[in-house]
Formats: sequence, C-alpha cells, structure tokens
Amino acid sequence: MPVTALIEYGTASPEVRAVYDDIMATRKTDWINNFWKALANDPPTLRRTWESIKQLMAAGALDPLTKEMVYLAVSAANGCDYCIASHTAGARRAGMSEAMRGELLAVVGMACQTNALANAYQVPVDERFRDPA
Amino acid sequence: MPVTALIEYGTASPEVRAVYDDIMATRKTDWINNFWKALANDPPTLRRTWESIKQLMAAGALDPLTKEMVYLAVSAANGCDYCIASHTAGARRAGMSEAMRGELLAVVGMACQTNALANAYQVPVDERFRDPA
Amino acid sequence: MPVTALIEYGTASPEVRAVYDDIMATRKTDWINNFWKALANDPPTLRRTWESIKQLMAAGALDPLTKEMVYLAVSAANGCDYCIASHTAGARRAGMSEAMRGELLAVVGMACQTNALANAYQVPVDERFRDPA
Amino acid sequence: MPVTALIEYGTASPEVRAVYDDIMATRKTDWINNFWKALANDPPTLRRTWESIKQLMAAGALDPLTKEMVYLAVSAANGCDYCIASHTAGARRAGMSEAMRGELLAVVGMACQTNALANAYQVPVDERFRDPA
Amino acid sequence: MPVTALIEYGTASPEVRAVYDDIMATRKTDWINNFWKALANDPPTLRRTWESIKQLMAAGALDPLTKEMVYLAVSAANGCDYCIASHTAGARRAGMSEAMRGELLAVVGMACQTNALANAYQVPVDERFRDPA
Amino acid sequence: MPVTALIEYGTASPEVRAVYDDIMATRKTDWINNFWKALANDPPTLRRTWESIKQLMAAGALDPLTKEMVYLAVSAANGCDYCIASHTAGARRAGMSEAMRGELLAVVGMACQTNALANAYQVPVDERFRDPA
Repeated sequence: MPVTALIEYGTASPEVRAVYDDIMATRKTDWINNFWKALANDPPTLRRTWESIKQLMAAGALDPLTKEMVYLAVSAANGCDYCIASHTAGARRAGMSEAMRGELLAVVGMACQTNALANAYQVPVDERFRDPA
Repeated sequence: MPVTALIEYGTASPEVRAVYDDIMATRKTDWINNFWKALANDPPTLRRTWESIKQLMAAGALDPLTKEMVYLAVSAANGCDYCIASHTAGARRAGMSEAMRGELLAVVGMACQTNALANAYQVPVDERFRDPA
Repeated sequence: MPVTALIEYGTASPEVRAVYDDIMATRKTDWINNFWKALANDPPTLRRTWESIKQLMAAGALDPLTKEMVYLAVSAANGCDYCIASHTAGARRAGMSEAMRGELLAVVGMACQTNALANAYQVPVDERFRDPA
Repeated sequence: MPVTALIEYGTASPEVRAVYDDIMATRKTDWINNFWKALANDPPTLRRTWESIKQLMAAGALDPLTKEMVYLAVSAANGCDYCIASHTAGARRAGMSEAMRGELLAVVGMACQTNALANAYQVPVDERFRDPA
Repeated sequence: MPVTALIEYGTASPEVRAVYDDIMATRKTDWINNFWKALANDPPTLRRTWESIKQLMAAGALDPLTKEMVYLAVSAANGCDYCIASHTAGARRAGMSEAMRGELLAVVGMACQTNALANAYQVPVDERFRDPA
Repeated sequence: MPVTALIEYGTASPEVRAVYDDIMATRKTDWINNFWKALANDPPTLRRTWESIKQLMAAGALDPLTKEMVYLAVSAANGCDYCIASHTAGARRAGMSEAMRGELLAVVGMACQTNALANAYQVPVDERFRDPA
C-alpha cells in the first residue's frame, strides 16, 4: 500500500463527500486539493480540521489576506513544502503582490536568524517585556 | 564566565555605542533591550543584524504592524521565548489589539497542526499549486 | 560526486557487510533499506546507530508496535520524509491498522498545535506539574 | 501588561466558565491548568481547542495511555516545556511507569538522531516504502 | 504562476546583475546557483543576504572550512534539503574529506538526540555552566 | 513526583556508578553534570548515550574543538537551553575564544535565515550539487 491513498470524490463515503461539498461551496471552487483527500483517510480528522480552518480563516479581527500571509510565514519557518505551496497560492489569491511576498519572506528569514541568535546567546527576557506597566 | 555577558552602554566601545545610539534614535526610545546587549559581544554581528532589521521592519509593501505580527508568529512557531516576549510587546506597540493577537496565535497553532499533518500524510503538492497558469 | 553514494552489499567492506548481515538476520528480511546504505559511508556511525536501534526497538517496557508508532510520530513532527515513509511501513508491519494511524497522526497534529500555543502564550508551568507530591 | 494574563474562574465570562466546567467534569478534577487559563484570552480558541482535545484524547483505536505517550513524545521533540511537563503528568496518571517513560524518551531521542542523519545524508526513499504492493 | 520564478542573468535588472557579478567574482566561478536566482525576485533581500554571507563566510577567527561545516551542520539539523546539498558541495570544495563529513554528520545526529533528551527530561542547567567563575 | 529526579552518585546503583566513574575519568573531572543524573533514571539509555558520546567526541578526522563547536551550533539551532549552556562551556574549555564564538553563532544565525528562505522560495536543488561529476 502507498504511504497515503488519496480519496477521490467519486469513491468517497457520504460523510467525506459532505465535507468536500462544504469546502467547495465555502471556497467557491470546483476542486479539492490533495491535503483534504489525504485527511479523508480519517474522516473525524477531516471534519475537525476543516471546521477549524473554516472558522479560523474567515474575516475577523484580522483580514483574510493577513491570515493567509501568517499561515505562509509559519509554514515557511516549519519547512512544510505542501503548505508553502498551497498558502503561497492562497495568499496570492487573497491579494498578496510579489512585492508583499518579498518582504514577507524576508521577515520570516530574519526572524529565524534572530530566534537562533537569541537562543544561542541565551538572552534573558527584559523585565519591561514581562510587565511594562 | 557567564554564558553571555550583557554589554551596557557605559562600558561599550565607540563602535557599539554608535549602534546603540542609532537603535534609540530610530525607535524613539531611551533604552536598549538585552538582545542587542548580547550581540554586542560580536560587534560585526551587532551592526549587521541591526542594519538588516532597521531596513526590513520599516514600512514598505507591508506595514509595520503586519511585519511585527509575522515576526511574532514565526517566533512562536520556533518557540523562541525571548523573541515571543519582545515581539508581543512590539506588535502591541504597533497597534495589535488583544482580539488581533488571539486570532494571530490561533492561525499560528493551526498552521503548525496542518504542517505536521501534511508531512505525516506525505501529501503530494497539487499541480495547480506549482503552475496554475 | 553525488551528495551521498549508497553502498551496496556487493561492494561493501567486510565491516559493513557484518552489519548488513545482522540487520537482515534480526529483521528476518533479505534486503537493506537505503538509510543503512547511506550510513555505510561512515562505518562507525553505521555500527553505532544499528546497535542502538537494535537494542532500543526490541520489546521491553513498551511493545514494538508502540515504539514504531512513537518513532513515526516524532518523525512526522520533525518533518523527515525518509523516516515517515520507513516507519509508516514499519508500524504497519508491526500491526498498526489504518484506524490507529488516523488517530496517531491526529494526536501528532494536535500536539504540534498546542505546543505552538503554549509557547506563543508563554504559559507558565503549573506547580502541580512540577511537584504534585 | 504582562505577556499573557491568566483568566481565573472567578473573573471569567460565562462562555469561558462553561468550557472550564466541561474540562473539570470530563477530567474528574477540580482545577484548571494554566494552558486553558491562557487560551481563555481568546474564547473561540479556548472552545475549539478543548473540543478537539476532548474528542481526540478519548479512547478509540488507540487507548488513552498510548495517546498521552505520543503527545509527550511530540512535545519533547518540539521542545515545548509546558507540554512536556503537563503530558508527563498526564501519561503517568494514565499508567505510564518510569520504565515505560525511560524507553519512550529513548525512542524520541533516537528518532531525532536518525531524522537528522536521514536528512543530512539526503537518503532517497526506497521504492518498497512507497508502494510495497 | 509557478511558486517561484528563477531570474536568469540575461533577463535580470542591472541591480540584480551587479550582485550576480559580485557573487561570481568573489567565488571565482562562472555560474549562479538557484538560491540567488530565487532571491532575485526581491532585490533588497538578494543584496542584503549576499552582503551578509560574503562578510560572514570569509576567513576570520574561524577558517572558511570550519564555517562551511557549521553551515552544513545547522542545515542538516533544520532539514533544509537545498542548503544541505549546496553546503555539502561548499564544504567539500573547502577541503572536507569524506571521513570529516562522516564525523561531522555523526556529531549533528548525536546533538539532535541529546537536545531532545535534555528537553524531554527537563534537565536543569548546572550552576557551573551559568557562572563557573 | 517531580518531572525528573536527579540521581546523585551516593544513591546510584552500581551500574550507574560505573558510568559516572567512566565519565569523570575520561573527562578528568570530579563532578557529574545534571544531564547524566537525569538519564540515570533509565540506565540503558545512560550507558548507551555515554558510550556514543565518548566514542564520537574524541579526536578523529575532526579535532575536539571543532566537534564541540558543531555541537553548540546544532544545539543553538534546535533551541536547547541545556545543551547550549553545557556546550558553550565545553567549547570554551576546548579552546574556543570569544571571537570564535561570535563568528560561530553568526554563522548559525545566517544558516537559519537562509534555510528558511530556501524553503520559503521552494528553491530547486541545482543539478551541479547533485552530481558535479
């Protein structure tokens, strides 16, 4: 058996199809990307993950573009190829220009550098950051 | 000797003081946080890191608040305590409300979850993400 | 020269062949997977790593299936493609059903999410966890 | 303001209290650990995270002890101090002996070592792991 | 559009060409590797990153071979395929023998193991390491 | 019970004492640092880890100072506080000057930055790095 089978709509259970239908309706698209087809191997995880993503990525205190860019930034820091590709596409669809992408990724790289330096030098947290009252 | 000595302004070399002065002038503040006092043990790294941060975090295609929030998000994903504390303060100073922080950190957590799931299931990248032309 | 040459049994030194023979005998199999063929470039690392794995993955206070699943979980959290593939196969061979895999990977994903949230919110460790005596 | 305020039961909103009540009832305990008091700063994240944890950590294809040990293993690999402390306590409560803990953490350490080696040597995934059919 | 376009010399802006020229002159080579062609999508990041690398990787208190090996070690620990490949080549060019590589990667693997163990066991830092005075 | 008890020499089993004795003899020191006192909770892991470290950190194709610096570099990249403190001390004892430390940590920080950038831009590995024949 392959590492992971991808569950296509045509052969999916009604439970899985219901999630796929909601993904396509919410996103106003006619296809399902591989991430969901993989999660469909475990329907409760598929449903729980989709419900969380749907709730979380909608407009709120932060707009959808900012959320997509943050998602991309974290995925880049974690080195997840799949999520970098899917959220680069998602952020562009939400309005990220190439100039914005350039600055976003530069901030990600700089944060990874200073995270390592702060750890390497074992820098103690300033009191003002803990309670600047 | 301690893991890292913190270099105070009063005992710093002129080269280090010049960077400290620029940090305080740029940030319109009268103190230097510990990160820079630790980097001052290696003046070329202090200067290079500060010059990069100064250039990068200024307004550009992305506004400073978005940059601070992305910096915080990456630091949280990397688990760097110092940078989480300093950029939580920085993002609040730049205008991040508690509601924005809540959503930001929720996106970070969700990204870390789906990054792990995409890796765990070895999900192949969809062709449309590689070249949706 | 390629990044890493794979050392095949036919061209291996007697020292390397002895480890390969022990791997095949211990695992009751007739092939060597690429991980060992790569480590064979450094025979002391090959031997030390195999001896550790052999000792560690045998039944003890934990059964071999639980150990394989934990190995897979850590490899997924670390995003190591090779180890995810090899330990998915290993865990299945040791008895992991697809339902067990689904729950296992869901726990991995959730742990990565709450790890990030605990760091992001800088949650202090409860005294009861340190010394619930 | 501190990095994160902890929301105590006495000052919590009804929405937060409802989650706290469910945590205590589900876990048959009379206290709330700091993780939830921190998440309570963002009630939707508190509720979503608790609902997911509650659903996921119950007995299913894997028993609760195995799930707690996997959670601990991933938290150790990710270096999350809070989650290591809380899930060490949780796994012990679910029945993890000190001998089991010893083997569990040894597997975590070994996995982190071979994950790094597999990456460092850029080991190609064996065909048999992709499709051993 | 692809995830990232690679900017070739022939179609690059004068600003990008100037960096490419400096890379080739500094490294005494006639080609540009893909990393720089990708960064060229954001010229300020290309220039800042190259200037930093150029300054940092030259001989100083550490020789270039040691620096290349450390770069490779960190890239292996972070699991960055691109950087592992490029710095394996770079370290070999700077004089890393296969025996040196074997020991280097073994140290990386061992460090990742004991890092995980130290975290997993929540080992407190010895006072002598903080201030052995 | 605390997260981890530290096993002191006076109350250790003969098996653990034998390892402690070998650590002190090999390192020409009269004390045992906390890492080993924590591992002593699982004597096979204590023995296996010490034997591996002893074999690996001795002079070989790489000298002990280089090995200690690589160990520190990886520990910094992984953000392991304990190992950063212990290997900063170890590297200094082996001859690392403050100037060498400054350059070492700068390389670590730069590697973390370009690792993130290479992932974020999804840079394809150059053919010359795979097989420069």
